[in-house]
Amino acid sequence: MPAEIPATSLQLRSLVKADQTVELFLEAVEIPAPGPGEVVVRVEAAPVNPSDLGLLLAGADLAAAVWGGSADRPVVTAPLPDAAMRAAAGRVGIPMTAGNEGAGTVVAAGSSAAATALLGTTVAMVGGAMYAQYRCIDASLCLELPAGTQAVDGASWFVNPMTALGMVETMRLENHVALVHTAAASNLGQMLNRLCIEDQIPLVNIVRRHEQEELLRSAGATHVCNSASPGFMAELTAALQDTAATLAFDATGGGRLASQILTCMEAAASAAAASYSPYGSTVHKQVYIYGSLDRGPTELTRNFGLAWGIGGWLLTPFLQKIGPEGIQRLRSRVAAGLTTTFASSYTDRVSLAGALEHEAMTAYARQATGSKYLIIPNP
Amino acid sequence: MPAEIPATSLQLRSLVKADQTVELFLEAVEIPAPGPGEVVVRVEAAPVNPSDLGLLLAGADLAAAVWGGSADRPVVTAPLPDAAMRAAAGRVGIPMTAGNEGAGTVVAAGSSAAATALLGTTVAMVGGAMYAQYRCIDASLCLELPAGTQAVDGASWFVNPMTALGMVETMRLENHVALVHTAAASNLGQMLNRLCIEDQIPLVNIVRRHEQEELLRSAGATHVCNSASPGFMAELTAALQDTAATLAFDATGGGRLASQILTCMEAAASAAAASYSPYGSTVHKQVYIYGSLDRGPTELTRNFGLAWGIGGWLLTPFLQKIGPEGIQRLRSRVAAGLTTTFASSYTDRVSLAGALEHEAMTAYARQATGSKYLIIPNP
Repeated sequence: MPAEIPATSLQLRSLVKADQTVELFLEAVEIPAPGPGEVVVRVEAAPVNPSDLGLLLAGADLAAAVWGGSADRPVVTAPLPDAAMRAAAGRVGIPMTAGNEGAGTVVAAGSSAAATALLGTTVAMVGGAMYAQYRCIDASLCLELPAGTQAVDGASWFVNPMTALGMVETMRLENHVALVHTAAASNLGQMLNRLCIEDQIPLVNIVRRHEQEELLRSAGATHVCNSASPGFMAELTAALQDTAATLAFDATGGGRLASQILTCMEAAASAAAASYSPYGSTVHKQVYIYGSLDRGPTELTRNFGLAWGIGGWLLTPFLQKIGPEGIQRLRSRVAAGLTTTFASSYTDRVSLAGALEHEAMTAYARQATGSKYLIIPNP
Repeated sequence: MPAEIPATSLQLRSLVKADQTVELFLEAVEIPAPGPGEVVVRVEAAPVNPSDLGLLLAGADLAAAVWGGSADRPVVTAPLPDAAMRAAAGRVGIPMTAGNEGAGTVVAAGSSAAATALLGTTVAMVGGAMYAQYRCIDASLCLELPAGTQAVDGASWFVNPMTALGMVETMRLENHVALVHTAAASNLGQMLNRLCIEDQIPLVNIVRRHEQEELLRSAGATHVCNSASPGFMAELTAALQDTAATLAFDATGGGRLASQILTCMEAAASAAAASYSPYGSTVHKQVYIYGSLDRGPTELTRNFGLAWGIGGWLLTPFLQKIGPEGIQRLRSRVAAGLTTTFASSYTDRVSLAGALEHEAMTAYARQATGSKYLIIPNP
């Protein structure tokens, strides 16, 4: 097999330049020989997740982007708004790699037992730089896929499944009994819905469109609230009374949705309270913002007492908190449900060069629910 | 001494009515005989704290208030905005008492040892209904003041001192090393400044006016940032780098100040970080909102990574968390520093009827820094 490995691999790069632009291009880089604990993987599939876009696009304004280069080696240049440029200060001049997760075939292995054992197998990986034809990576960052599993089915094994499991674990760790989830018709949302049904956890799904309501209900969801409904606040409050959900994970970030959720949680808690207090109910209400579909400011109308919290939520620190044993437990569960509970679906598949085409970039940058791209680096 | 006690006591009441108004008035109520564990206290001083105003004014629009009744028995009627009326739903038709804390002389005691021991002493009290001439109260809610301490010096023994101590304790419990405080020239702010100097805790004071800067600097403050300064963000970031403060207590609530603090904390953390991450620094940054000087929405511009939290902070649940021993430790510290570290100052003293006069109400409802009223119910 080592004979199959070429000398170089195409790798997608994102470079913020001092002239306040970001440049996306493919770079041919040498494939290193694996160290003792490492393997070289031919990357066969890598998804474009919302969590990849921050690094990839650097907050650029794609409406003003310019497409150049050749079909094989496209070069996209886009200007950065001032705020994005300030946020990118730490990466100016550094051609960053991208792609948090992917899957492929191990084509070379270092001398360690762990590495050698993976040779020839199909593995899922996490660790960045997955938008590349080959990836040299530590064996511990690979998950051997069950026999017969295709790389395309294992490519999204980490970010969404571990996030869905992380939400449920956080709920238990912080003593809540039910969950609220926004942008609930996303790949992640559908996964969380299946997981909560499996684990019998009451889940309140918040969506923005009628067809998303239908989608979730047909997948067995009990509580689906449409934020575009005129009766949204009353409907959400009723669902929160039913489920006693006091923890929400919000993918939108900007706007008033987090505030509305807290308001309805407080209304549900007050309805159950024995007496009036000017400080509001004593029930702690928590919203974690884990995405930024709406990049505008978060607006909080503080009419929900004083027992509340809002914060950022990120997978990596959560995994650090639960430690290696916790991570192993979650990994095993994902591996067992890769084509069922934790299955992802994609609207389109593109090559590395195809991922830099106008149509694809515009589509995945929009982060529309139900639109998800899979990169096939070795078509 | 029991002979001195009249049959009835004037008590300030706040009544939200179904017609969407709040009515403030004095009611003569019978003074009950104390139960075995209770004492009757002649209230000699009770402060008007910002935390009293929510219950007292019910969010009324004082600009549209009408003053009626007699000089001895004033009646103030003010309309409630819609949102305030919704928030007051639980108290419509119930004439609420007000005043969280106060001090006075124990004039009658129940049969228990704890109650009898207090007879004739000057005590500070917490437990509500302090805007009254007499208060029958459980002996455990009284703190016997050190010999020679006047009631006026003990009246504000609880809310501000315990809040200042609570901020410092929260800082330690949540593993921060320094504090940020807004509205820092308030009575509470000056107290926190003295406490942090005593305990050698770095404190970043945020104020809005030049004379408040002067006040705090002359009281020994090292870091004072003026949010009205054109260089505020840079000045705050520099103070945060100096102090490594990652925890703020915000009394304003509305507007952008909480967001600005998080932005500057992130800038300070990023300056110290070794490498760039699209998710921001790994340093957890926390703001607790404990007041609502600005009743408008809180606006968060999420340019501070994902390791952040904002939440409400209230003294009572904090005290529940530290338990009876923790509370006793803080009480003892307050008692020892009542006229020094934990001293309060007042701009005006008024009778119960005086507390309902136009000038006084307008002044304390404005919650201006440096303007604090003390009610003397038995002039």
